Amino acid sequence: MGAKPAGKRTDAEGSDEAGAERRLERLGRNIVDDIYNSKNPRFTTTTRSRSNTIYDKKGGFLRLGDATEDHTFINISQSKRFMQTMAIASKCHSFLEQNLHTSIRGLFYQLKYSLGDEVDENLFNEQTESNPLIEDLELTLGVRRESLNLNANRKGVLVGNMRVVDRFGEGAEMDMSKMGRSGWAIPSDVDNDIDFVDVKAKYVLVVEKDALWVRLNEDGFWKKENCILISTIGQAARGARRLIRKFADMGLPIYVFNDGDVWGWYIYWTIKTGSMNLAYIGKDIATPEARFLGVTISDLDRYEFLKSMTMKATEFDLKRAQEMLKYPWINQHKEWVDELKLVIKTRLKLEQDSLQGPRLTFVDDYIKEKINSKAYLP
Amino acid sequence: MGAKPAGKRTDAEGSDEAGAERRLERLGRNIVDDIYNSKNPRFTTTTRSRSNTIYDKKGGFLRLGDATEDHTFINISQSKRFMQTMAIASKCHSFLEQNLHTSIRGLFYQLKYSLGDEVDENLFNEQTESNPLIEDLELTLGVRRESLNLNANRKGVLVGNMRVVDRFGEGAEMDMSKMGRSGWAIPSDVDNDIDFVDVKAKYVLVVEKDALWVRLNEDGFWKKENCILISTIGQAARGARRLIRKFADMGLPIYVFNDGDVWGWYIYWTIKTGSMNLAYIGKDIATPEARFLGVTISDLDRYEFLKSMTMKATEFDLKRAQEMLKYPWINQHKEWVDELKLVIKTRLKLEQDSLQGPRLTFVDDYIKEKINSKAYLP
Repeated sequence: MGAKPAGKRTDAEGSDEAGAERRLERLGRNIVDDIYNSKNPRFTTTTRSRSNTIYDKKGGFLRLGDATEDHTFINISQSKRFMQTMAIASKCHSFLEQNLHTSIRGLFYQLKYSLGDEVDENLFNEQTESNPLIEDLELTLGVRRESLNLNANRKGVLVGNMRVVDRFGEGAEMDMSKMGRSGWAIPSDVDNDIDFVDVKAKYVLVVEKDALWVRLNEDGFWKKENCILISTIGQAARGARRLIRKFADMGLPIYVFNDGDVWGWYIYWTIKTGSMNLAYIGKDIATPEARFLGVTISDLDRYEFLKSMTMKATEFDLKRAQEMLKYPWINQHKEWVDELKLVIKTRLKLEQDSLQGPRLTFVDDYIKEKINSKAYLP
Repeated sequence: MGAKPAGKRTDAEGSDEAGAERRLERLGRNIVDDIYNSKNPRFTTTTRSRSNTIYDKKGGFLRLGDATEDHTFINISQSKRFMQTMAIASKCHSFLEQNLHTSIRGLFYQLKYSLGDEVDENLFNEQTESNPLIEDLELTLGVRRESLNLNANRKGVLVGNMRVVDRFGEGAEMDMSKMGRSGWAIPSDVDNDIDFVDVKAKYVLVVEKDALWVRLNEDGFWKKENCILISTIGQAARGARRLIRKFADMGLPIYVFNDGDVWGWYIYWTIKTGSMNLAYIGKDIATPEARFLGVTISDLDRYEFLKSMTMKATEFDLKRAQEMLKYPWINQHKEWVDELKLVIKTRLKLEQDSLQGPRLTFVDDYIKEKINSKAYLP
């Protein structure tokens, strides 16, 4: 009997790198046992399909359902994928043993080799073949790729009253209140060999655009307000999403400050409920506690100057606003229904940059007012 | 008589923020003098056109030629632009007085206001109107926008044996050898209120992809080799290009390690000779001393395993390779002509990630071998 999918484990192996190594070894042993017992080698994953992606109403995030699928070796349509998955598992095990990391592109190149003179074929020809098998493996083992020593693309910066203890290499302790104009670059892996300590902040402010983060950092906003100031620099990377989740686990309120348009909304909902693509690790990276500070079209009633700052919404904006009204995780909130309907009615959008219109530091006041008056969206 | 363009100045005003403030004030005074003397208010910029963009063969970079153009107020086709440019100059002066920075988008929003009830028009409606006028102003004043307190988008990371003294805000001193897995995020402005000190390195290695930077950082490559390790994370931002120029000014050799394809070449030549778009500040951000380590298609003769790592060049790759052969700054180098012709002949390309094929740390050996055997391209 092969390895079981993540949700059904009963063992006490950790999901960190050490746990990942043990789980990989157990997966291997189970496959070998299958062979010795004359069974068809097999492992089980959770099905990653649209129909098995559900919105967990109680938890408030997108996750996979209970449907699982078996992968077997003696099966004409599965044997190549099975072999390829084992090759990936073997490589990840060797990365863990060597204590070295790479990207999923680096992994692909380690697997892009000929199967030998008798078979005129490579193990892998395109990265599009290896990527879904990495997700299979993450689900089978119940660990995220970051603990298999596979780095994801990183993006995002942070500053605030806290320290980062990074045991990577020879180790480094960094004071997040002494990062100058730059801020700390949020890495891919924020779980292994890294700690976030002395977190002395009242809340976390997540800002869509780096330009606004730079503006707020210059004003010392994080210092005056005692918050942790993050920019996701557009769509949030896995590492940034995971780190936001970790701050929420520390009990810190999470406020998101984005554009009032399709991308701003999308970035917010990805942070809050997760995304279809990453529903397979939804619980670990979604932050349902997040709140949307703005900017919103309803802000036009609060701030007179904003009326000359609007842009025309595109057909794409309006179409997406209509679609969002159909999502149960959105239309359960009256405030969001009102906001989206207002966008559709006025055909307007607003950028967060426009808050610099009256004076550069107005953006600081806007954020404080929104938080203090609880004028945010759920 | 209005302000003169950059190249023709004879004054000793600095090009830093303090110098920029003085130059803005002089520009204003000159305009006022023109008015009092019943002259048509006027300022002069260097012409930013393809025909006035030249390759400076002696210097080895793209720059603007000597053609200038006058902008006058009493001129039906120029008066609006003139007024808009003065409004930008006035805003930049106020940013310098307040000691606050913003982005060119932030500047645009400060200028997106109605000209009053009698004129049913905004001063600016689109950022595409203000962007070229900022360049006019940079040329008229002879300062880059960073010294006008206008931030450009930033991108890029750095680690190495050196320190950054950032006098931004309350100031921060950061040890670039203690940045853990993250590295220091290279800011937009690497000239004002910032110093790069105790630079103890033999050379600078500039890496196209962040994933390879992360790989090399994990191996402690910069420590073992005593180099400064930078990733531009794709196309280099203004700040990263300027910083590379500054390291070259310190006498450090600059080696660039990119993909062996259209984008890798383009990123290299942008660092080395500058680009058409930024020819107006070419001298300040181009690094003609840079050398291209690879990867190259000629590497296939050096490393047997690379033969199974190649990708097919696209028609776009091949077309661009043909075009590059026509550029005088490229076809003056026999080594580049040979490489590009080899690409066209073999119809192959190579990614830097593929150097992880035999083992993850092979990339370290590759770089060392390329540098030690001087097997780089000019």
